[in-house]
Amino acid sequence: MARPRRSEQTREDLINAGIEQLSLHGYHGTGIKQILDQVNVPKGSFYNFFASKEAFVAELIGHYSDGLLIQLNEFLQASQGKLGPIEQLRTVYQVSLKSFAQSQCQKSCLIGALAAELGRESDMCQQALMTSVNKWLVVYTQLFDRAQQQGEVRGDIAPKQLATLYWSAWEGTLLKMKLNADLDAAAQTMELVISSLLIPKSANQ
Amino acid sequence: MARPRRSEQTREDLINAGIEQLSLHGYHGTGIKQILDQVNVPKGSFYNFFASKEAFVAELIGHYSDGLLIQLNEFLQASQGKLGPIEQLRTVYQVSLKSFAQSQCQKSCLIGALAAELGRESDMCQQALMTSVNKWLVVYTQLFDRAQQQGEVRGDIAPKQLATLYWSAWEGTLLKMKLNADLDAAAQTMELVISSLLIPKSANQ
Repeated sequence: MARPRRSEQTREDLINAGIEQLSLHGYHGTGIKQILDQVNVPKGSFYNFFASKEAFVAELIGHYSDGLLIQLNEFLQASQGKLGPIEQLRTVYQVSLKSFAQSQCQKSCLIGALAAELGRESDMCQQALMTSVNKWLVVYTQLFDRAQQQGEVRGDIAPKQLATLYWSAWEGTLLKMKLNADLDAAAQTMELVISSLLIPKSANQ
Repeated sequence: MARPRRSEQTREDLINAGIEQLSLHGYHGTGIKQILDQVNVPKGSFYNFFASKEAFVAELIGHYSDGLLIQLNEFLQASQGKLGPIEQLRTVYQVSLKSFAQSQCQKSCLIGALAAELGRESDMCQQALMTSVNKWLVVYTQLFDRAQQQGEVRGDIAPKQLATLYWSAWEGTLLKMKLNADLDAAAQTMELVISSLLIPKSANQ
């Protein structure tokens, strides 16, 4: 792959610094100056790359989410056949929780944190967040669909509904972990969802 | 009850305006000036009431949460005997969702939104948020305990664990509703938790 041009590299650096700062401080808690200082870019040139803070954040939401989805899909493909769908899901939540815990649980899911902070305050960000949430729900739905086909998950609830519930429990759990920094408690809640609530009725006796 | 002194009334007004603004715009998105403008209090006098924005927000977190908990406990007491624990829980989530929906779903649970935005950024706010979360978990735990005793909820998971899971699913659901303003989808997720996941195994066949 050709080396990216300098301007492309700067754009990429700005986005990555933005993801870092917004994960820690949220939308309103992060100033453009903080991001520029981290990347050593003069203030004036920010607007050569992005039309506004809003446009910048909308773009970095997609960048953040798509990057994680690529990693997720790579893992799901690489482990298919070796791990069942539920064991894949378990690995994903365990790896994700540990990764968030590395920042004393302060760098949590950027999608959930920005959704909670912004809601529909910014059309651009709201659309980027919804696009991201929907992409995650598609992956989870496919995973639960396969889990049902393999008898690993109860079959009486539509995979999409299971995916929505799982996503909600996940985001709520991260929110609590950001507050109490209790990785074990977070893992316990996610394990409860997987092991007790979603397993087939016959296995649940 | 004696009429509150003027300064007490101003303090109360500031807290209520703060709850309103922070529910909509979050911690960093709300300036003290916005709140003072709403209450018609000159800027200088804010610090007669509160030591800092942080102290102000920590206090209003407790005020907001305790106010809702009083309402919740009043409803639980008044409806005990008439409604079973699960029907009580269903009424609570339905009334709450409808109340949040009145603001185009933008005024969501202040506790969850501030937890997502701040995490452990402010010691004072983190403590106030944790105190609030723990109080809610106590009420939910008692509710699930009663539901288990009455055979309305599966008995193989500790009430406290059920409460934590329920709280997580609730906060994650609100987060999504704030984004897509879809009241029906939010209600569907909460109903799924109550009707499908938590009911006793025998009823689940």
